[in-house]
Amino acid sequence: MINSVNRFIPDNLIAYQGSDEYKNKKRILIDKKQKQLKTVFLNSIEEAFDLYNIKSEMCLSFHHHLRNGDFVIQKVCEVIKERDLKNLHFAPSSIFPSYTNIVDLIKTGNITDIHTNYLNGPVAKTISEGNLSGKLIMNTHGGRARLIESGDLKINIAFIACPVVDKLGNGTGSYGKSACGTLGYAISDLEYADVVILVTDTIVEKIEHKQIDGSYVDAVIQINQIGDSNGIISGTTKLTKDPIGLKIAKECSMILKELGVIKNGFSMQTGAGKTSLAVVKYIRDIMIEDGIKGSFASGGITASYVQMLEENLFDKLYDVQCFDLEAVESYHKNKNHLAMSASQYGNPFENNTVASRLSFVVLGAAEIDLDFNVNVTTDSMGYLIGGSGGHADIAHEADLTIVISPLIKSRIPLIKDEVMTVTTPGCDIDMLITERGIAINPNRLDLLEKLKNSHFPLVSIKELYDITHKITGVPKKILKSSEIIGYVEYRDGSFIDCIYKI
Amino acid sequence: MINSVNRFIPDNLIAYQGSDEYKNKKRILIDKKQKQLKTVFLNSIEEAFDLYNIKSEMCLSFHHHLRNGDFVIQKVCEVIKERDLKNLHFAPSSIFPSYTNIVDLIKTGNITDIHTNYLNGPVAKTISEGNLSGKLIMNTHGGRARLIESGDLKINIAFIACPVVDKLGNGTGSYGKSACGTLGYAISDLEYADVVILVTDTIVEKIEHKQIDGSYVDAVIQINQIGDSNGIISGTTKLTKDPIGLKIAKECSMILKELGVIKNGFSMQTGAGKTSLAVVKYIRDIMIEDGIKGSFASGGITASYVQMLEENLFDKLYDVQCFDLEAVESYHKNKNHLAMSASQYGNPFENNTVASRLSFVVLGAAEIDLDFNVNVTTDSMGYLIGGSGGHADIAHEADLTIVISPLIKSRIPLIKDEVMTVTTPGCDIDMLITERGIAINPNRLDLLEKLKNSHFPLVSIKELYDITHKITGVPKKILKSSEIIGYVEYRDGSFIDCIYKI
Repeated sequence: MINSVNRFIPDNLIAYQGSDEYKNKKRILIDKKQKQLKTVFLNSIEEAFDLYNIKSEMCLSFHHHLRNGDFVIQKVCEVIKERDLKNLHFAPSSIFPSYTNIVDLIKTGNITDIHTNYLNGPVAKTISEGNLSGKLIMNTHGGRARLIESGDLKINIAFIACPVVDKLGNGTGSYGKSACGTLGYAISDLEYADVVILVTDTIVEKIEHKQIDGSYVDAVIQINQIGDSNGIISGTTKLTKDPIGLKIAKECSMILKELGVIKNGFSMQTGAGKTSLAVVKYIRDIMIEDGIKGSFASGGITASYVQMLEENLFDKLYDVQCFDLEAVESYHKNKNHLAMSASQYGNPFENNTVASRLSFVVLGAAEIDLDFNVNVTTDSMGYLIGGSGGHADIAHEADLTIVISPLIKSRIPLIKDEVMTVTTPGCDIDMLITERGIAINPNRLDLLEKLKNSHFPLVSIKELYDITHKITGVPKKILKSSEIIGYVEYRDGSFIDCIYKI
Repeated sequence: MINSVNRFIPDNLIAYQGSDEYKNKKRILIDKKQKQLKTVFLNSIEEAFDLYNIKSEMCLSFHHHLRNGDFVIQKVCEVIKERDLKNLHFAPSSIFPSYTNIVDLIKTGNITDIHTNYLNGPVAKTISEGNLSGKLIMNTHGGRARLIESGDLKINIAFIACPVVDKLGNGTGSYGKSACGTLGYAISDLEYADVVILVTDTIVEKIEHKQIDGSYVDAVIQINQIGDSNGIISGTTKLTKDPIGLKIAKECSMILKELGVIKNGFSMQTGAGKTSLAVVKYIRDIMIEDGIKGSFASGGITASYVQMLEENLFDKLYDVQCFDLEAVESYHKNKNHLAMSASQYGNPFENNTVASRLSFVVLGAAEIDLDFNVNVTTDSMGYLIGGSGGHADIAHEADLTIVISPLIKSRIPLIKDEVMTVTTPGCDIDMLITERGIAINPNRLDLLEKLKNSHFPLVSIKELYDITHKITGVPKKILKSSEIIGYVEYRDGSFIDCIYKI
């Protein structure tokens, strides 16, 4: 063939036909070869133990987004038991009743130290009874992010249960057979652990909207099933029918209305319990009646908030973990249902966290004392039953923090001379709403002033305390043992209380 | 110790003293652990051959920024010889006279195929003589970037000589004992090769202004010395004293002035030869006299352009490779002396390349024919002496492309009936300036129109051809052999000419 400059070119080659000819050609561009392409894919948890030389004394972390339906932490515990690794430091963001393998490993000295934000069930019981040979450190959700991101809590290996992973190691929890929604508590682990291992049951070619960035991921392990989505459902999906709970919820919503905080652009967070759901319902009624639109709701997100987002009562949801399957579905499909990391949620060292932008929060309490100090960590006998989670984070950061609770639960008074454990300091609790009256923290004179001429039954917390004792009698003081088994670490790294052996 | 919520805290822990105390604390944040931290550091080239299983048939690439002072390609050749790897495909961006080990490897069949943009010296000679058992493909600088980035040229292993590398695998050529300035021709290799290996003699803790992004780097090899910076000096640093050269340079600058292209905001590129330096000097004189400031000069950058940048005659320099040590120093210290990749320079598949923004370029030619087709690849006997480099890229992209040359060089006429090899098609050459007259390509009627009433000696290229023959006589036509040893690939992937065995 002769080309356009009159030169012979063999027929198997493309002959030059003018300098602008390429403008008519299709421009093929292949992918660049950055290192995130090189995530390792493994077939078992054992392989990861071999490859990364996971050994005694290491710190292993986990998240709890599959909650009581998580299988990953159980499976990792099996490998630890098999290999009999000793003196491990476990740092799961929370521990649920189904994580029973941890109990065995505590008793045999395989796990000796634990950092977590919340725990209940058999693990809580065995630690309360003094079986953990090292210490339990109870953190807040924001505090855990701070610990990791400041280097105070060094994680060697992060196991991240991840419902869907792609070929580049990117991940999401928004769909898949073990979908759990957002993965907010895993993000610090992802970004800071020495080795990051995603454990999944579903690998796809490409994830469009990733929450886990593959450039932080060292390995992906595919197993048969990482969890049971139904296990994520927290508490109840129905609001309370208990008349005392309904009364408190109604009173709470009316006070919020009276204070004028339910106004255009406001933001809120509540828990997922039956009474909280009733508070949300009453607030929704007020918003619809008064034509009010909020800016956002945050937290562990439930179906109630999903409904309000869909009804356009909020602009956005900021979701650190999905509390039910409606929230998972909404996070998957609604672009205004946004994931946030624990750090973006409530890390005290982060600027402009979601917690710091909250107009009000409504929280629970297992116990409260006359200084408004709240305990959600132990029961009145001293047994571990929970922990702060985000309690102390949002209590401090929100403009208005309300605790709601009946005065008597299972015949035990709410208000104590001294709570068994301080989880959240009283200076961060602005108001206690009960069925027999509302106590405002004396450090919130502004609230007292605003409500003094209202119809609300304002009383002092001491009056509520006295009312209770008239019904229940003065309970016997529970003597704590002198053996410290752990600590409650405040979100900033200081220590707010000790936890004692039963 | 008793904290501010009246709780006992052991003395070795920080006691809680209020929820806002952390605001007075220093916020420590550690680095995130992204995968680019995991670049492998090796102590020898042999180790890399073992680790990445470098074997027969692979394609290995190199850049030529250390030019005649490069030691890396020589050392890699030694390892290939030792291990006797066969049928290798070499893809260095250029080949210089000092790369003598390649000659041996060609003769023994260790290297059988070569892609390059420019070659001279012993390797050029041995290929011209037919010793390469496969084919030589001659590309342009922009075309090589296109080949790699479109997947047409698959590089298995890229060896990138890199004067300074940091602990994260980031690199720069702007300083170090073997500094060579910008690394523009290595960027496609970096981003697209299967395995990227930096070879350095200087490792530092952290590079502030990296040109090589460590996230693409697999391994770093530290050796004693990667090259001799003095070897980068191209041609001469002094302008010509030859009266014919000076006359042509002066005429070129006057025509540019007459055409009005030396105006505020203009941009230009020239070569690094003695006559080109004289053109730059005359243009500089015009700019100073007329108070003109250009936007940029580009190319292989020389001290002349550095001076003009410092004199504020240009806003910026776009530098794909530094042609002398003044340019290296300037790139290191002057923030307006910018590196560009070969792709940003002249990849025909890139948008808005630097080449496409050039007002004019001044180029050389070994031969030119009556259709203005230019040969810079072979001499008039057919021996390989160079190659396009950026010649065909900027000839096509610039608004005005001028070739300058004396009519007779070493008693051989410049203008031929037929050039030995077409490097750059005549449609992309607008004007030929010689000591005996100026020929304008008939496809540029606009230039003919603008200059028709000027004092410039406008002639046809056929007239220049005839003038020459009156002096030299008609040269004997050199008959080419029929054996094809390689091809000249135009920047877009089409083929513009064949290269024949001597």
